[in-house]
Amino acid sequence: MHGESLLYLSAELIIMLSVILVAAKVGGEIAERYLKIPALIGELCAGILIGPHALGGIRFFDLAGPMFHEVGKLATDASGHLPEVPEPAIPFALYFVGQLGAVLLLFEAGLETDRKRFLRFIRPATAVALGGIIFPFGLGALVTWWFGYANFNSIQEAIPALFVGAILTATSVGITARVLTDISRLDSIEGVIILAAAVVDDVLGIVLVAIVVGIEAEGSVSGGSVALLIVKAIGFWLGLTLIGSILANRISRMTMWFKSDGSTLVLAITLGFIAASVAEIYFGLAMIIGAFSMGLALSATLLKEYTIFAIRNGGSILVPVFFCVIGMQVDLTAIWESDNLGRLALFAFAVTVIAIVTKVAGAGLPVMAVGYGKQRSWRIGLGMLPRGEVALIVAEIGRASGIIGRDIFTVAIVMTVVTTIIAPIFLVKAFGPRQPRRQGHAPTNAH
Amino acid sequence: MHGESLLYLSAELIIMLSVILVAAKVGGEIAERYLKIPALIGELCAGILIGPHALGGIRFFDLAGPMFHEVGKLATDASGHLPEVPEPAIPFALYFVGQLGAVLLLFEAGLETDRKRFLRFIRPATAVALGGIIFPFGLGALVTWWFGYANFNSIQEAIPALFVGAILTATSVGITARVLTDISRLDSIEGVIILAAAVVDDVLGIVLVAIVVGIEAEGSVSGGSVALLIVKAIGFWLGLTLIGSILANRISRMTMWFKSDGSTLVLAITLGFIAASVAEIYFGLAMIIGAFSMGLALSATLLKEYTIFAIRNGGSILVPVFFCVIGMQVDLTAIWESDNLGRLALFAFAVTVIAIVTKVAGAGLPVMAVGYGKQRSWRIGLGMLPRGEVALIVAEIGRASGIIGRDIFTVAIVMTVVTTIIAPIFLVKAFGPRQPRRQGHAPTNAH
Repeated sequence: MHGESLLYLSAELIIMLSVILVAAKVGGEIAERYLKIPALIGELCAGILIGPHALGGIRFFDLAGPMFHEVGKLATDASGHLPEVPEPAIPFALYFVGQLGAVLLLFEAGLETDRKRFLRFIRPATAVALGGIIFPFGLGALVTWWFGYANFNSIQEAIPALFVGAILTATSVGITARVLTDISRLDSIEGVIILAAAVVDDVLGIVLVAIVVGIEAEGSVSGGSVALLIVKAIGFWLGLTLIGSILANRISRMTMWFKSDGSTLVLAITLGFIAASVAEIYFGLAMIIGAFSMGLALSATLLKEYTIFAIRNGGSILVPVFFCVIGMQVDLTAIWESDNLGRLALFAFAVTVIAIVTKVAGAGLPVMAVGYGKQRSWRIGLGMLPRGEVALIVAEIGRASGIIGRDIFTVAIVMTVVTTIIAPIFLVKAFGPRQPRRQGHAPTNAH
Repeated sequence: MHGESLLYLSAELIIMLSVILVAAKVGGEIAERYLKIPALIGELCAGILIGPHALGGIRFFDLAGPMFHEVGKLATDASGHLPEVPEPAIPFALYFVGQLGAVLLLFEAGLETDRKRFLRFIRPATAVALGGIIFPFGLGALVTWWFGYANFNSIQEAIPALFVGAILTATSVGITARVLTDISRLDSIEGVIILAAAVVDDVLGIVLVAIVVGIEAEGSVSGGSVALLIVKAIGFWLGLTLIGSILANRISRMTMWFKSDGSTLVLAITLGFIAASVAEIYFGLAMIIGAFSMGLALSATLLKEYTIFAIRNGGSILVPVFFCVIGMQVDLTAIWESDNLGRLALFAFAVTVIAIVTKVAGAGLPVMAVGYGKQRSWRIGLGMLPRGEVALIVAEIGRASGIIGRDIFTVAIVMTVVTTIIAPIFLVKAFGPRQPRRQGHAPTNAH
């Protein structure tokens, strides 16, 4: 009886969520306290450790929290009610909780950003994003061709190279935002430029992925559809940010109509949620872009003042789930399953090095060019380095649509893991010792 | 491309969650401010209104949030990663968020309960629970036989009657806990007895359901397996409550080892989560029993003092989702689809009246018998009245396992909706005007 009930499934899921929460918090605590590296690396590694490809895959975990327990039919069969819940519902629900964490993280990042600063730095941010896209894309495509995974005889044969390039353009604003929050530098000049550039990077990067997938699907791509995509993407976040800024105080006052406990909090979060899903569903952008833009729009309102504390509390629960779930998606053993191990390992090494060098240089050099100095260029270049969930998702789109094989997919994962793990370490070093929260913006290396 | 991505699915789900959150809060606000009834009725009705059988089923909502949008294959196909996510994953994930709300609600209720009072009133609570089980079970079975939906010629033919009886024994401690929290009476003598009785009721009611399902499955049921079930069920919550009470301060101190933001909160919630899922998975009890018992065990600790505010915040977001999702499961039109409308409508009326009378009298009379007086008997009887999610789940177990048909299932839903809607109205009246939070326990009707 119980094996078939929705409640039993929910209980399984709650056990898994509990394991994830505790593992993430223990991992984060060890990382921060004993290894002196940002908590998110501990959370990510905890995810790799308890994930299906490590501890989560062995029998012991089947007992404590049966991650892959076969789930029978259950609940009502009426199409409207709650129909059969097959096995994938559980990993999806865990993934979804992680996504809520990502959305909340970027919403909070937007809320805590100084909007005037953000808009003031939009031009250097665009330069950073463009530099951080062109170099990784070009060299990523070239190295894929060099290793023989693609050639440029025809557009079809070049697709894998273009896709690897597209994966390398990704920037995970979530990872950097978390690191900068941890060291209280989210509102520094570098922080604002990095966040703004990551938004622009995501918009342009996703357009790039859409174009490559479009070419693969149709054999070609029309100029009109590309133009439409670009207009939609850029229009959305410019529009949301600008219109949002104008209406923010009105929206903020509207939510004050509600008197019952927690209503203001619910409505603030809902605004972030809606912007996130509208960005994804109707504009083909990432959810985190929508959440960040809405946070930015509401950053100078009373609504923010009323809710930011509770939103930080919520983030402290959900964000570690996000990083832990990312870690659980990593399968490092897959690289040994390849038929052509030596070449693949070399390719993985080359792609990772190119991913690091082209992003740090490509994003950093435009900053130097406009006169921000060497230290800021270095910090901003590093801030754009982590690929995080964005590259994982892009790689998965490529694998699922048959553009790249399992070998290149694995390489993309290795590159993502390495950049995501090393970037925070160098970022923390580049920014110097931890600053007291909200104590001035001027960068300093003094101890 | 986007129609196949996990992120797109997550975005759809976030839109739905946003619609649920806003609808629940608007419904709750209207109920409380304009109709002067508890917020949860507004939340429940908002759920019925936006549910798949009303607005959520028409085309308009398919655009805003495509509740039944066909979902293609996506993500990795490796068994470990995130495999295909078919359509049911979305309703399940929404249901799961609601379940987190229910667990949090009962964990909070446990935390805010005065443990010494709870244990002091465990005997009247047991009397209340027994009275509230025997009468509804007996008369529920009788009326089902009377209307010809079952007969007592053989044990197999009597099963539907026994099952209707079992459904009627349910008590939704969640609904009553919320009402009493809303009117600041959760820690009154009546409140403590109701909560304790609902826990006992749930333990005994679930044993009853397990026995009926066991008879259906095997044609008979052995005395040994029934005894084992009862020992497990009662042993679990007595054990958790008592051992938990002894170890609570040690657990509380252990969680203080963590220094990073939100760790204490995460660990407190995780303790409630683990107790909830262990109750469901390993002891065949309801999750909410586990959560309540753990909350009770931790109610006098520093951990509670540190986290209760944030847990209330979390509850104010998730609990309305729970009630709204319950509302979304209600399909009032189903009663008109019956072949034998007149008889079914009469049966529904009879079952509902019996559900009300037997529960209020059955739970109230033992209270009167031990000398608590008429007013307290009336309040406690009413507090045990709402069936809420417990009856819905029990009815669903019956339908899914073929014990009851769609007709009796619909009747059970009508009974659940009516008792769940009327109980809070009468409860609020019975308890008199709203008391300022934490201002004495003595009941009063003075304005």
